[in-house]
Order: sequence, then structure tokens, then C-alpha cells
Amino acid sequence: MLTPLTADLAPDDVALVRLARWLLANGCDGLGVLGTTGEANSFSVEERLAITEALVAGGLPMERIIIGTGCCAVPDTVRLTRRALEVGAGGVLVLPPFYYKGVSDDGLFAAFAETIERVGDSSLRLYLYHFPRMSGIDLPLPLIERLLAAYPHVVAGTKDSGGDLARIEATCRAFPGFAVFAGTERYLLAALRAGGAGCISATINVTGRPAAGLVARWRSPEAETLQAHLTELRATIEAFPLVAAVKEIMARHTGEDGWRAVRPPLVALPPDQADALVARLEALGGLDLAPLP
Amino acid sequence: MLTPLTADLAPDDVALVRLARWLLANGCDGLGVLGTTGEANSFSVEERLAITEALVAGGLPMERIIIGTGCCAVPDTVRLTRRALEVGAGGVLVLPPFYYKGVSDDGLFAAFAETIERVGDSSLRLYLYHFPRMSGIDLPLPLIERLLAAYPHVVAGTKDSGGDLARIEATCRAFPGFAVFAGTERYLLAALRAGGAGCISATINVTGRPAAGLVARWRSPEAETLQAHLTELRATIEAFPLVAAVKEIMARHTGEDGWRAVRPPLVALPPDQADALVARLEALGGLDLAPLP
Repeated sequence: MLTPLTADLAPDDVALVRLARWLLANGCDGLGVLGTTGEANSFSVEERLAITEALVAGGLPMERIIIGTGCCAVPDTVRLTRRALEVGAGGVLVLPPFYYKGVSDDGLFAAFAETIERVGDSSLRLYLYHFPRMSGIDLPLPLIERLLAAYPHVVAGTKDSGGDLARIEATCRAFPGFAVFAGTERYLLAALRAGGAGCISATINVTGRPAAGLVARWRSPEAETLQAHLTELRATIEAFPLVAAVKEIMARHTGEDGWRAVRPPLVALPPDQADALVARLEALGGLDLAPLP
Repeated sequence: MLTPLTADLAPDDVALVRLARWLLANGCDGLGVLGTTGEANSFSVEERLAITEALVAGGLPMERIIIGTGCCAVPDTVRLTRRALEVGAGGVLVLPPFYYKGVSDDGLFAAFAETIERVGDSSLRLYLYHFPRMSGIDLPLPLIERLLAAYPHVVAGTKDSGGDLARIEATCRAFPGFAVFAGTERYLLAALRAGGAGCISATINVTGRPAAGLVARWRSPEAETLQAHLTELRATIEAFPLVAAVKEIMARHTGEDGWRAVRPPLVALPPDQADALVARLEALGGLDLAPLP
């Protein structure tokens, strides 16, 4: 889920709640807030906590929300995770600590273990956020296996944004009952066929309806056709910087310029790229977006 | 500078102040606290502020201290930088926001510019922390040039941990008056010859005396020999994970096991590696470390 911003780049709580409700009413079974698309790491811990509170105050069904809480510093991850639990979030999506590169699997295990131990609540449902292109950190399957063995109910699943379908399928096979979300709707059908849970994706902010259509009919003969269309939409958007592109689409859809705001180091799409994106999407028949409430 | 930790992995203020005084008395002209070696990004903002306060309370000469303040989130960087200024730190060492990869130079410029504008104090002396292997972000020279043009007194220098001597020399040539610190004492002599300011290095925690010896005599005929010895020491230590290796050396030197503590995702050196490190250093004649006060 995007994090809408005000003109001075603060989180826009009103737009956030509007977006959350709209997504749940238009194809999304749940929400992943404060992930990469939500610019989580561009916010302070206090801002991230305030975003969580805004969703609570907005009356969103927190059990359908997974909150990104993974920071470089374990104490930050613990603090955010505790609050997510307190407000009844369905789970937390946790990046490995991502400053140091080339760290050992022992070190990564220790970071997740310390997070889980310090949170100290067996109701925790922790999803491992695998996104090596951003984090610079690999989460190899033996590490997941070790975490699952140590914390079998707490380590609940993964969002795999590694872009490697074979790994997603292997993860589904290796750990039955472990909820594997593909990080892109490009692999939604393949993930479902492999026993995965679905997808959590930047572009789902604007492709929720066709994605839901595929989820509803993934065992039907039309599934391949539905996936092919979804893949075309995804490919069109991901040819541009992803967060800025999705925010641009929301700005066009709502007629509200504020949607374009991103925090540095991200930048809004330049007008020529924005026009090209829209033209290409229209050539595919557009996005079938419902009006925002 | 290392950040010593207590047994429960909290910053150890007493050991921190001891270490700071010892370093300044044994070869270091100044201190770089809360950099990569200081495990800065493994601490919350509050812990980082407390580390700063501990140095102030310990009576350290703050004008000789550069504090690492660069976070993924600009508000965190601003908050830490403001406090560094308030306590009279000699400068701040600022990583680019390092979660998003593949960002544009416009986005990086905007992140530094917003930091500087929001701090809003012309007495700020900001050092650009170039460490692409950890941050995953390049800071190309044209970006530095643009920042220098926009903030000529504030953007004061760089710590270049890129491992590329040609770049360090090119930076010295391109921006006279800009303080270029090599990120390793391996390039200390070369940096000084190119007009650089010196070095800020993990291993200087334990090579401060020989490094100071080189700085004192870098124009003398012995300079090459002094550099060669320093390079041998550096190469020996950096064959191991750097922070853990330097902490191991401090543990052996003081006889205090607590020095080995690191925060996940880092891990202490396993005993066999620790023994190998010490044996190799002894084969070079040892490190000539003064007792800690």
C-alpha cells in the first residue's frame, strides 16, 4: 500500500484511510502497509507508529493488515512490532537488518531471533521480507528452515520480492503451511498453483480488481488469460520507477496532484514519463479503477 | 570508533568514554563515532542520541568529534544532526538514504538538500559518507559538485570508503579545500600526497599510533616504509569481519571479554579465527597498543 503524503511530505492520514478502504473494497483481501511501496524506511519510527494509529483511528480491520516493521536496528523493529501486535494487526512484515552486507546467516538468524524473543508474544505472526535487490541481503531457504524450527508458529510466512519464481515455488514446496506471497502479481497464478498464499505487490494498489479476478478463477480455463493481462499491466508499470509510477496513476485517477508526492531519495515521475505510462496503460484497455470514496 | 556494548547489547557508556580518551591520547587527531564500525545503524535514534550525550558527559572535546547521523529517513538524519550541532560536534558524517537502490542523483541531491535545509544552521559541517559496498548507493563526483555549489560551506568533506584510490585522488583534485578522508589507512599516504585530509578507518581503533607516525613523517624518506607496515596491519585485520576483528583485538588487549559483544546481524569472531588474527598480527610485530586508562 502506498503512503500518501501532504505537501510538506508528512504522511497524509486522511488519504491513507481513504486508500485503505478503497483497496479493501476493490479486490484486496488485506493490506500490506509500510513496505517498500509505502516508503516505510523513509519515515522515522514515530511517523511509522502514527501511520499505524491512523489506520486504527480510521476503523480499518486491523486483522487484515500486515505492517512492515523491519528496520536496521533491532530495537526499532521490536518497538514497531509490539505496537502492531497491540493494535491487532494480522502480522508484521520484517526485513532483515539491511545496512551491513555480507553478513552471516548466523547473524541474520540472531537478528530475527532477538526480535522475536524481545517482542515475547506467541501471538506474533512474522512474515520474512525477502527483497535482496533493495536490502542487499539474501534470506536463503536453510535460514528460513532454521527460523521455522525455532519459532514454528511465529514465523508465519514470507513476501518474496526476489523476482525468482523458482525460489517462490521451492519455498512453497519446502515449507507446507508457511504462507508464501509472491512480491509481484506477475507470479500470482504460479504462486497459487504451487500452494502459495497470493501476492503482496506495489502495483496491486492499482491492479487489485484484475488480480482478484484471477484469484477467484485461478483453477478455471481462463486463468492463463487473466494472468497474461495482469502481467502486461504489471510490466507496463514496472518499466518506470515503481512507487512514483503508482502514485502518478493515483494522481491521474483522482485528479489530485498531491498523490505524486514522494520522499527523497525517490522522485516523482517527470511529465514525459508520466504521459508515456498513461498512454501505454490506455493501450492495454486501462486499469478499471473504481472512484475513490 | 567502536561502540562498546554491555552484556545485554546496550551501549556501554563507561567503556565508550574510556575508548574515546584512549584514542585521542594514542594517535587520533579526532574521532568518528557512530559510523559503520560504531554499528550506528544497529541503534535506535534514541540510543544514538544517548551515545552522543555520553561523550558530552565524559568531557570529550566535541569539536574533535564527527558524529555519524545519516539514516534512511531524512527526519532521523535531521534530528541527529541538530543534536550533534547543539553539542558542538566538529561535524556530521552522513550516509545517503540507503534503503532504496537505483535511485537518481536528483533524488540523492534532494535527500541531502532537505537534510541541510531542515537543519537550517550555517555552522553545519557535513561530510558525505561514501561507502557503496554497504549503502548500495554511489555518490558520483558530479553529485558532490552539485552539493558543493548549493551548500559551499556546509558540505565540508567526505569519508571515502569506496576502496578506489583513483576516486579518492580525483576527489582531492576536483574540489580543493574539500576535506577528503580515505576510508582506510591503506591509502593514508596516497591521500595525503593528493591533498587529502587523512583517514577515518575502522582499524584505526588499533592502528592509531603507527598511523600517526606516518602522518607526522609523510613527507620524509621513511614514509613509504611506514605506509607499507600500516598496510600490512590493515590487510591482516581486514581479512576478517572488520568490526568483530577490531573488537576481538580490544578484548585481547584489555583482557575484558565484554569488548567482543556486537549487535546482530554482526557476530563475534569464532575462537579459531580470533586466534588466527592474533597470531598473524604478532608475526608482524604486534600492534604497539598503550594500556587503556
